[in-house]
Amino acid sequence: MTQGTALTASTIPGTILSIDAMGGDHGPGAVVAGMARAVAKNEALRFIVHGDRPELERLIDRRRGLAERCEIRHAEGVVTMHDKPSQVMRHGKDTSMWSCIEAIRNGEAGAAVSCGNTGALMALSMIRLRKIEGVNRPAIACLWPSRNPSGFNVMLDVGADIRADAGDLLQYALMGASYARNGLDLRRPRVGLLNVGTEEHKGRAELKLAADLIERVSTAADFDFVGFVEGGDLPSDKVDVIVTDGFTGNVALKTGEGTARLIRELLGEAFRFSPLSRVAALLAYTSLRRLSKRIDPRRVNGGVFLGLNGTVVKSHGSADETGVAAAIKLAARLAAAGFNERLTARLAEAEQAAAAAMQAEAGQA
Amino acid sequence: MTQGTALTASTIPGTILSIDAMGGDHGPGAVVAGMARAVAKNEALRFIVHGDRPELERLIDRRRGLAERCEIRHAEGVVTMHDKPSQVMRHGKDTSMWSCIEAIRNGEAGAAVSCGNTGALMALSMIRLRKIEGVNRPAIACLWPSRNPSGFNVMLDVGADIRADAGDLLQYALMGASYARNGLDLRRPRVGLLNVGTEEHKGRAELKLAADLIERVSTAADFDFVGFVEGGDLPSDKVDVIVTDGFTGNVALKTGEGTARLIRELLGEAFRFSPLSRVAALLAYTSLRRLSKRIDPRRVNGGVFLGLNGTVVKSHGSADETGVAAAIKLAARLAAAGFNERLTARLAEAEQAAAAAMQAEAGQA
Repeated sequence: MTQGTALTASTIPGTILSIDAMGGDHGPGAVVAGMARAVAKNEALRFIVHGDRPELERLIDRRRGLAERCEIRHAEGVVTMHDKPSQVMRHGKDTSMWSCIEAIRNGEAGAAVSCGNTGALMALSMIRLRKIEGVNRPAIACLWPSRNPSGFNVMLDVGADIRADAGDLLQYALMGASYARNGLDLRRPRVGLLNVGTEEHKGRAELKLAADLIERVSTAADFDFVGFVEGGDLPSDKVDVIVTDGFTGNVALKTGEGTARLIRELLGEAFRFSPLSRVAALLAYTSLRRLSKRIDPRRVNGGVFLGLNGTVVKSHGSADETGVAAAIKLAARLAAAGFNERLTARLAEAEQAAAAAMQAEAGQA
Repeated sequence: MTQGTALTASTIPGTILSIDAMGGDHGPGAVVAGMARAVAKNEALRFIVHGDRPELERLIDRRRGLAERCEIRHAEGVVTMHDKPSQVMRHGKDTSMWSCIEAIRNGEAGAAVSCGNTGALMALSMIRLRKIEGVNRPAIACLWPSRNPSGFNVMLDVGADIRADAGDLLQYALMGASYARNGLDLRRPRVGLLNVGTEEHKGRAELKLAADLIERVSTAADFDFVGFVEGGDLPSDKVDVIVTDGFTGNVALKTGEGTARLIRELLGEAFRFSPLSRVAALLAYTSLRRLSKRIDPRRVNGGVFLGLNGTVVKSHGSADETGVAAAIKLAARLAAAGFNERLTARLAEAEQAAAAAMQAEAGQA
């Protein structure tokens, strides 16, 4: 048996993930540290790790019990944040990112995780994994801290594509509802469409058309459509899945993260301000820690690519150990749930149901 | 002398503001309370107040010293949040909002403040005040809490129009720079264009074109162009003026506000969690209060309409006493600075400079 197939689902029980160790801002050190942290919480995890073998061996050997859970696959090349997706698609065969996606394509791992260049990762995933039949534009979905019982809702697209027409937004609604079912355990997710107002006459023309389409399939696709939602509803408990185009979603995601970061920093400064406030911080330690965990963007790290034949989790480029561990945990959960098979089945069902609904409507007219 | 002209810039020293007292979520009570609070900090303020006379008289008479600073103008009608702008333009002559704008148009007041329906207020302001010569789309600019020394930066457009082409974005850059000079006392503002990445090849085609145009006029218009910025840069100290279309800007604004609100609420809960954390909250009272003021969205309440012949400040519909007072303070500052005259002059200069720059470039080619 060659080293390349030493770890497969049949030989070792547990979840196997494919990890691109290169390309993040903090290098492979942060990725390996995140792997070690994830394993400490879930011992059944196994990894196929892609990148510079000597460096990875050195980093992995330093972590107790990690080496026996890893298979290292050497890759010479690294996709940098400045590489254009088109270059990577043509000349990127020797990169750790390509190798990482290949392990999903070959069925060796249940999900992939990378901190690398988002555009290149999406482009590679699209050509190597291909889109699920019937999907026009894949999307990236993120989890958003909210007032919901689970503590989160889902927003998509947050940056796969800067364009989305009404039909794309409908598919985002279907994919987002499926993700909320598997990622947040919601039986009947509430879906909203992001706009500049909740009144029906507001916003761009394609949004009105998308609202009509989503409303029409909601019953058959087993979700509730709550209509238009605004930026202020993102952290609310009004909605579980927020649908928008990748330009708007990306700006909203980064704005929310930036605002949370600013407030965290100001909070830290407030408690270092005087000896009295330092004593107060000690007394409030557990309360503040609980709050800090809740609003820490690193803990919801991991954009999931939806609409491809394989689950790919994109971690923040700037993710540290905590962030990488969160992305790995998410990937493991989705792999264990057989999320991608369920999503594919749901999309096929929804398409049939939508066609039937429209046919029935046409029959009545 | 009729009552309509009892208060004018020549008869009473100080700043005269035109206030639409109706149409906000909390009714005229919150508006009058905000006026009283603003007067307590700046005794030179005078108001022309538009709305239901009996109710306004009752509310104003209850506040010591306020009645002598107010002239009430009765208006029967109220523009509601559900009225369409087109209806208000055709049938809204009897409304407090119309009357409020009229006082600016006639030169009786230096700036207007309204908590009413944004779309209707913009539509009325456009037809009654008209656009400054050369301006295609007016914009709404807001202040954003940031790491800058002033504590703020400026973002526009946050909702005047859901569309903006490259030429509109250039005008937003010019107007935003002028507002930052007068509203934040910055000699040479740094202007950035909001995008989904800072790399030159990212984003929509009109953004690349806009970046070229803005870069080209920056020297003549006396600002620094820092290129593309992302959502995460909004609260940073990298940029003073953030330029974007009204759809994206509105979503970003409401997302940032919603995130700040969620964290404020969670912080309050954290400190009510246990007897120990309540003691801690007491000890940290002044530190927390300072933080709370810094991130309170009510304190930066007030979107300014730019590009019209007159200064109109749109307060949040949900503004309470604190929020209305903040909007009035902003309006008073801009009126006292003669902001609109300066903006008009700047735009004319910039247009000439841009034309000259392009001619010179054409000559070299």
